[in-house]
Amino acid sequence: MRIAIPKERRPNEKRVAASPESVKKLIALGAEIVIETGAGLASAITDAAFEAAGAKVAPDAASTIAGADVVFHVQRPMPDELAHFKRGAVLIAGLNPYADRDSVKAYADAGIDAFAMEFVPRITRAQSMDILSSQANLAGYRAVIEAAAEYSRAIPMMMTAAGTVAPARALIMGVGVAGLQAIATAKRLGAIVSATDVRPATKEQVESLGGTFVAVMDDEFKNAQTAGGYAKEMSKDYQAKQAALIADTIKKQDIVITTALIPGRPAPVLVSAEMVATMKPGSVIVDLAVEQGGNCPLSKPGEVVVTDNGVKIVGILNLPSRICVDASQLFAKNLLNFITPLVSKETKQLAIDWEDEIIKASILTKGGAVVHPAFVAA
Amino acid sequence: MRIAIPKERRPNEKRVAASPESVKKLIALGAEIVIETGAGLASAITDAAFEAAGAKVAPDAASTIAGADVVFHVQRPMPDELAHFKRGAVLIAGLNPYADRDSVKAYADAGIDAFAMEFVPRITRAQSMDILSSQANLAGYRAVIEAAAEYSRAIPMMMTAAGTVAPARALIMGVGVAGLQAIATAKRLGAIVSATDVRPATKEQVESLGGTFVAVMDDEFKNAQTAGGYAKEMSKDYQAKQAALIADTIKKQDIVITTALIPGRPAPVLVSAEMVATMKPGSVIVDLAVEQGGNCPLSKPGEVVVTDNGVKIVGILNLPSRICVDASQLFAKNLLNFITPLVSKETKQLAIDWEDEIIKASILTKGGAVVHPAFVAA
Repeated sequence: MRIAIPKERRPNEKRVAASPESVKKLIALGAEIVIETGAGLASAITDAAFEAAGAKVAPDAASTIAGADVVFHVQRPMPDELAHFKRGAVLIAGLNPYADRDSVKAYADAGIDAFAMEFVPRITRAQSMDILSSQANLAGYRAVIEAAAEYSRAIPMMMTAAGTVAPARALIMGVGVAGLQAIATAKRLGAIVSATDVRPATKEQVESLGGTFVAVMDDEFKNAQTAGGYAKEMSKDYQAKQAALIADTIKKQDIVITTALIPGRPAPVLVSAEMVATMKPGSVIVDLAVEQGGNCPLSKPGEVVVTDNGVKIVGILNLPSRICVDASQLFAKNLLNFITPLVSKETKQLAIDWEDEIIKASILTKGGAVVHPAFVAA
Repeated sequence: MRIAIPKERRPNEKRVAASPESVKKLIALGAEIVIETGAGLASAITDAAFEAAGAKVAPDAASTIAGADVVFHVQRPMPDELAHFKRGAVLIAGLNPYADRDSVKAYADAGIDAFAMEFVPRITRAQSMDILSSQANLAGYRAVIEAAAEYSRAIPMMMTAAGTVAPARALIMGVGVAGLQAIATAKRLGAIVSATDVRPATKEQVESLGGTFVAVMDDEFKNAQTAGGYAKEMSKDYQAKQAALIADTIKKQDIVITTALIPGRPAPVLVSAEMVATMKPGSVIVDLAVEQGGNCPLSKPGEVVVTDNGVKIVGILNLPSRICVDASQLFAKNLLNFITPLVSKETKQLAIDWEDEIIKASILTKGGAVVHPAFVAA
């Protein structure tokens, strides 16, 4: 079984889908590993480090992918990479299929069995394979670092001979994995932290991290969590009430970090232009949903917008890539954990149980056809 | 008594020498305040905010300075500003005279009584006037934020479903005000922190913040602090022994922050090119002494240098300006605290006691002559 790891070619992508540690463990499963030269460099992993772990290094994407039984990627391959896949090859990556429905058909046409790691279900057995969680955790940390870097004040309270510097007030909007790590990091740095979410279970989580929970707690709120652990889209009425509460809260904030995503849908607007207009000059908003349309209508992908009233709105693309060394390590571990149960201990070859819950949830294309229910019609 | 606050014109300078709070208190002393339009904008203080505090806003440097009895500045004025000073006016600022000895003669020639705030002695009574401390404290905080932003990993340990992210190891070199705040901030963020200094008294300070103290503790070390609280320049022999210990320590570090300054002298080299070559790819050095020649010979003013072995060396100029909102507040408070005892409660005019220890230490020029002993010969 040959596993190929080509270099990432998508813009702003510094991660790599393997680490020396994951390479060693894949080889222990019986795999032969081929890595494209320079694939790890942006994540501080040299070709020599991969070779020391037992990988072969190939000079380009074509020679890396050619003949591979499995291809690991962080993001979906560039269209011209697909021509190098052998028919029947397995692609395992963060394929982000909602962002490019045509790509799904292209995998089928190329005879690739493509697994979208985002669709791995949120069940206990699959936690260690969950790229959304591993990357969101780092993104939540990094969002606070980016906010601190853009903020022209100190975050902690400081008592000095020339007077006291007040601590920053930070509001975290959306308390998923990213939001929880943002709360923890902002607390570490000494901010006064509050947080909001439409899922009632998050109240206790926020409070356990030392944050103050801010939400309209009516009946709709009490029933607002889906089985998958994601936020439901709330009614217009609830959104209006919550927006009024947030409008009151947000005026007093120095830092706002928004993390609300709805799978396959545009991100909900949490911070309106009117709310931004009430914020203090020098305040910072970091919009983690900027790639899905943004939680703030003023955020722009890849830019730091400064409003007329001096509020900075940070719309960094691919935040996990800003912390690529750790992000690559964890991503590589997720892929290792995903493929391990798919390899036969006897034959050292792939032996996929197509009836397995994780496989059924994540497979997009198989044997030349689109098979995932969300994309069959496309 | 009219006090003027012109806009700062030096490169990379976003601070301003007054705040609405300091303006109110200066007016309470009996002063009339004139501020140049836009002087506070980069520090998130609008003209309107200064006006609300009671200041007048003037359209340019000339009309701001004209007729003023006292001029406040963060950095030394641009040469063309001096023409606008009336003879006998008092200039109070961070004049950094060692960096530009000709400027001292220019103040004398213009008949300006110039006070260099850096020379305010480190005595209890003057603590609240100490711009070096107030700004170094913020620079130490900001150095860690800059390091975290350049570092492509997380600083704290993180236990995740996909494995544990190891905490970063940070070494703080030079444990003055900046170094202490850097230790505290790196600890807040979850780093494993060690620190080094040639002054024995710092050992206890480092340990009280949870850091590990690293130094060769011989007899020279035990007697290495000057009366002013600065580090002495150490013997070649001590420097070699210390360098060997640091060379051993530095290999294991992810983040190194250097803060060693010797007043009026080039900064000592603490991290040699050979040491940098032993560091891990992705490691970050922040050189706070870059403007005084640097504690690392590879640092470049205003640049982030990436070495062949993947180490980032951050040479940001004017780090306090990166945290300008708080830095301006504290700087303004320092100037307020400096001038308050110089104003007669009866006449509301300047009544300077020329025999006062603080005055004698900080005055550079008086009555058309250079009077500070370090510059008389110049």
